[in-house]
Amino acid sequence: MNARILGDEAEREGKAGATLVTKRFFSLDGKTYEDGTLPAKTKELLGLVASMVLRCDDCIAYHVDQCVKVGVSDEELWESFDVALIVGGSIVIPHLRRGVEFLDQARAAVAASGSNPG
Amino acid sequence: MNARILGDEAEREGKAGATLVTKRFFSLDGKTYEDGTLPAKTKELLGLVASMVLRCDDCIAYHVDQCVKVGVSDEELWESFDVALIVGGSIVIPHLRRGVEFLDQARAAVAASGSNPG
Amino acid sequence: MNARILGDEAEREGKAGATLVTKRFFSLDGKTYEDGTLPAKTKELLGLVASMVLRCDDCIAYHVDQCVKVGVSDEELWESFDVALIVGGSIVIPHLRRGVEFLDQARAAVAASGSNPG
Amino acid sequence: MNARILGDEAEREGKAGATLVTKRFFSLDGKTYEDGTLPAKTKELLGLVASMVLRCDDCIAYHVDQCVKVGVSDEELWESFDVALIVGGSIVIPHLRRGVEFLDQARAAVAASGSNPG
Amino acid sequence: MNARILGDEAEREGKAGATLVTKRFFSLDGKTYEDGTLPAKTKELLGLVASMVLRCDDCIAYHVDQCVKVGVSDEELWESFDVALIVGGSIVIPHLRRGVEFLDQARAAVAASGSNPG
Amino acid sequence: MNARILGDEAEREGKAGATLVTKRFFSLDGKTYEDGTLPAKTKELLGLVASMVLRCDDCIAYHVDQCVKVGVSDEELWESFDVALIVGGSIVIPHLRRGVEFLDQARAAVAASGSNPG
Repeated sequence: MNARILGDEAEREGKAGATLVTKRFFSLDGKTYEDGTLPAKTKELLGLVASMVLRCDDCIAYHVDQCVKVGVSDEELWESFDVALIVGGSIVIPHLRRGVEFLDQARAAVAASGSNPG
Repeated sequence: MNARILGDEAEREGKAGATLVTKRFFSLDGKTYEDGTLPAKTKELLGLVASMVLRCDDCIAYHVDQCVKVGVSDEELWESFDVALIVGGSIVIPHLRRGVEFLDQARAAVAASGSNPG
Repeated sequence: MNARILGDEAEREGKAGATLVTKRFFSLDGKTYEDGTLPAKTKELLGLVASMVLRCDDCIAYHVDQCVKVGVSDEELWESFDVALIVGGSIVIPHLRRGVEFLDQARAAVAASGSNPG
Repeated sequence: MNARILGDEAEREGKAGATLVTKRFFSLDGKTYEDGTLPAKTKELLGLVASMVLRCDDCIAYHVDQCVKVGVSDEELWESFDVALIVGGSIVIPHLRRGVEFLDQARAAVAASGSNPG
Repeated sequence: MNARILGDEAEREGKAGATLVTKRFFSLDGKTYEDGTLPAKTKELLGLVASMVLRCDDCIAYHVDQCVKVGVSDEELWESFDVALIVGGSIVIPHLRRGVEFLDQARAAVAASGSNPG
Repeated sequence: MNARILGDEAEREGKAGATLVTKRFFSLDGKTYEDGTLPAKTKELLGLVASMVLRCDDCIAYHVDQCVKVGVSDEELWESFDVALIVGGSIVIPHLRRGVEFLDQARAAVAASGSNPG
């Protein structure tokens, strides 16, 4: 889908694609989570909790994956889920359940590949 | 207001107050931000970003104050503001402005009292 | 403000006012809370909890007032606050505080007028 | 999924599970809808309307089921849908449609089992 | 589903259906997007952007279809996506992706039918 | 406040200011509403309706002002209010009222200055 949105004309099969504003927003979005004064690990947790209280499953899946990649532990994730649940209330519960599913999948994928993201 | 909501009958001047459910929620809310595997500093930043994307000024003021108390630096706050702004969009801007005002007030209060929260 | 929005041209001082769509919506909004299979009392509590989880103080003030007018007790209101708080999370707390303030004001106004809304 | 989140270590297959904060929240969530000054029936309708305006289909499915279990009539449900629709707007319509589907399924399940939840 | 909600008793198979409030709301919803001082084209774009920042995929699909029917160009849609993305932030991205999928499907359906909606 | 956030060190009185991510976001936000395939007039209406359904008064005030500056008529604004009200529901009403106040102030300011924004 990114090629359809951000790609060149061939990738978009001649269809109109994203404007410059949208392209720059996507690029800015990537920069936001790079290591800075705060480590990427903390920024990914911030992105995850923001996604949970705003209740966006695709965004939760993405940030759980990123958290696993940058070495966040399960205990750190569960304490972050606490904040999302208390701030956002029971309406967050279905998304917390899916967050746990995404986490189990991400850990299983790492185990299957034999790599150590920590 | 907390005495009116959570206090004993005298504090509530004979009026009905919070149920047990509400009292327990308030207590749980306090426990959420205590040091754990994640330090209180990180948890306060998670609470702050959640409050910013949900756009609650009272909650932002509270978490900015807590961040200053547990020693979060201005640079760490600005990088957290980035996440809130990118995830939540321009609708967050008025709340980011107020977040900066709350921060300036909290730093000024610390300077006036001569204490060093860091 | 209602005259400015819904009134005739004289009331609007010659300015453009609400379209037919907006006028009909306002009228439909009024009908929603009339006694039906569910009593007005329950409908006002539904409107109140919806307003609390969506965090609209003007709407909370309005429905608290209506609840007092149709005879909802403080205990019933506190149990409704529970639902709003648990569903909506700590982000609802500032609005719950203001809901209690609105309630105290509404009860005081009734006491001052000598009427009994129950 | 509840066993994965709230269960003991065997149920979690050795994985980290919910913190004490999350466990207590789940327990508090259950207590919120018990009979009190307001009957469970009214509280479930409050939970349903809150879920509809916040647009959480899993939560709507859960509360529709609970409403059927505690004996809420279809007419009472439709009047509650009115409040959700008017407060929350046309954005609620897809969730109202799904609420009706959940209701038809819950009534069919009751009819199939021969029990009478009212 | 509309027959189940809005239809007569036969269409509803004897089940309770929408109240008068809900029926009138559906009718008002239809009137909102008719040509007025603003053309239907602009109103559909307003409905689309509102649906994107509120993140309702069913509503986005509906308004993208309507936009195609009333002759909105791809370039106009992409500039509207910009506004939704900047106002609503990265949380809108998954919905923008689905908006593009809906658009490609709507254009393909038009091409297959040989009609020209512009 | 913009100088405090986006300005150079002197303007920020030595305090830490916005990161590059936040600065670029502000710049992108400005570009979003420039004339393109869609005229600025339509884009401002899109920004206004998005702000109304997300219920941000500062954002509504800003876009109403911009609408007046780029020559949107009152009739066009009222039809845009319709879309916001129908999509977002009665929770939008307090913001619609304030939108009308902002409009009256913006028109009065234009009348006082003798200019004609249309």
